[in-house]
Amino acid sequence: MAATIRDVAQASGVHVSTVSRTFSAPHLVNPETRNRVLAIAEDLGYRPNRAARALTTGRTHNLGLIVADIANPFFPPLIKAAQAHARLRDYHVFVADTDEDPQVEEELIQTLTKQVDGVLLCSPRLSNRAIEKLSEDVPFVVVNRRLRGMSTVLMDVGHGARLAIEHLTALGHRRIALLAGPAGSWTSREMSDAARAADGIELTVIGPNSPTEHGGIAAAEAVLAADVTAVLAYNDLMAIGLVEGLDERGVEVPGRISVVGVDDIVPGRLTRPKLTTVAMPTEAAGRTAVDLLLQLVGAGETATPALATLATHLIIRDSTGPVPS
Amino acid sequence: MAATIRDVAQASGVHVSTVSRTFSAPHLVNPETRNRVLAIAEDLGYRPNRAARALTTGRTHNLGLIVADIANPFFPPLIKAAQAHARLRDYHVFVADTDEDPQVEEELIQTLTKQVDGVLLCSPRLSNRAIEKLSEDVPFVVVNRRLRGMSTVLMDVGHGARLAIEHLTALGHRRIALLAGPAGSWTSREMSDAARAADGIELTVIGPNSPTEHGGIAAAEAVLAADVTAVLAYNDLMAIGLVEGLDERGVEVPGRISVVGVDDIVPGRLTRPKLTTVAMPTEAAGRTAVDLLLQLVGAGETATPALATLATHLIIRDSTGPVPS
Repeated sequence: MAATIRDVAQASGVHVSTVSRTFSAPHLVNPETRNRVLAIAEDLGYRPNRAARALTTGRTHNLGLIVADIANPFFPPLIKAAQAHARLRDYHVFVADTDEDPQVEEELIQTLTKQVDGVLLCSPRLSNRAIEKLSEDVPFVVVNRRLRGMSTVLMDVGHGARLAIEHLTALGHRRIALLAGPAGSWTSREMSDAARAADGIELTVIGPNSPTEHGGIAAAEAVLAADVTAVLAYNDLMAIGLVEGLDERGVEVPGRISVVGVDDIVPGRLTRPKLTTVAMPTEAAGRTAVDLLLQLVGAGETATPALATLATHLIIRDSTGPVPS
Repeated sequence: MAATIRDVAQASGVHVSTVSRTFSAPHLVNPETRNRVLAIAEDLGYRPNRAARALTTGRTHNLGLIVADIANPFFPPLIKAAQAHARLRDYHVFVADTDEDPQVEEELIQTLTKQVDGVLLCSPRLSNRAIEKLSEDVPFVVVNRRLRGMSTVLMDVGHGARLAIEHLTALGHRRIALLAGPAGSWTSREMSDAARAADGIELTVIGPNSPTEHGGIAAAEAVLAADVTAVLAYNDLMAIGLVEGLDERGVEVPGRISVVGVDDIVPGRLTRPKLTTVAMPTEAAGRTAVDLLLQLVGAGETATPALATLATHLIIRDSTGPVPS
């Protein structure tokens, strides 16, 4: 059992409140007493209350990681990679989930910034302006959103979307639908920019949609009404839901409609047909984001923001096939 | 933008350090000054550093939630239910992942207990004794472990295991394997106690195993060597992995071997065959755990520990069938 504040007080011959004050407001403690208490605390291996220590050293050795939806299998590999990478550097990572709600996101940022040395914000739904304001108090790294003047980690989903559309056009598809993601999503905008710029296709954009299996199921009617032969979905969860929704209506994938997702989450390998998808480098993104954040934490106010763009690639499985004749 | 400490200092006519001290060590500030600073801080809507406020009020309004593996789809519904339930009560929940590692679990508990008003510990891998020691500083609720003298939320997996075995014996199975989970798991012990007590079956216990898809794949050989016709796996991830491992060896599920999982995670509904499983009440567990924890937080030292046991049930899908003749 670790030494308590009482052990330190007794060994130092001072009152418990003096030990407490030595860590929480050291300038208020007589230097001689302060030095004695600190030396004894170290000898006994006393772990000061980290909140109190944070007030003294300005470091909590904790990082906050905010994600849009912890239940989306996209995030856990990113979270776990960030945690493992931070742990090697003596940092703990605390995760909070915004439930895709910008207001909750704002609350969580306000709370976390007071308690950690830096914040990783993944797939934000807040506006750029709101994020800039909220990030003034503590080093910030944003994942999946381009924000000038802030350190950002991007996964190059525009490139992935182009690869997906090339794959579909090579299979003869011309009438393609894009199932867009949530309104505030940078990833969704990148995908739609890439799709709109593609040559020789007739594009229908459907959305915004909830980035979930339910969002995909709900979009099945709109996909059928759009009279397309292929769909690129904002993420794998929506793609899986869309395949379900089409299956319920007796529409075969890929026989009548080809479907491509984005993310390469594990469930996409379990469904039948197995999902063709744009693989996102989630683990590398988690590690890179921690590296950039700890650079900012170390550099203090002199830090310059960095931009890391990570490559994506296409994984062709069984949910895409030739255009029906 | 919220008021800063500088705004409060200026409006109160004191130095910034006095404002800081008013929140971090109020007993050291002249009462008249203190009252003026606090009144002005309230007028300006100044949000004191929560770490500092925690030192003063003893409340952070944050809860910690520690899980064994955030990438296991079992945990996110529990986490999200706990977060939503806590938010209604003005509490934030910060999540940390132990990566199934007892040492990391111990570190995270030590760190979190200093920063939050209470801790929810889900599916611990530490010993009971270690948990009891670590939980001395802050209210604790344990999920999926029976611990006398502590508030606990149990999902009645023993009952679920009995239902699963009754289902298998009704289908004619007599030689049944139990794929055990990790060594420190209460759930795994409950399941094996229930299976050993079952009448009229010949039980082979295989394990401990890693509670992951890979753990299930790796166990396929041992299952075949055990010459059984049915398997009850510690969780759905292992069951999904086992089905994959058997499929690679040309062994049909449920044609030659029936497989039952535990948890009812989403991927179990996407695999072919769809997984028969014991459904665990994860969302109810998350909410109940928050309720018990906030009772403890509110009651302080007078709190009495509570035990909640939540029911499980069997969902029969396509991975179980009659014993092969």
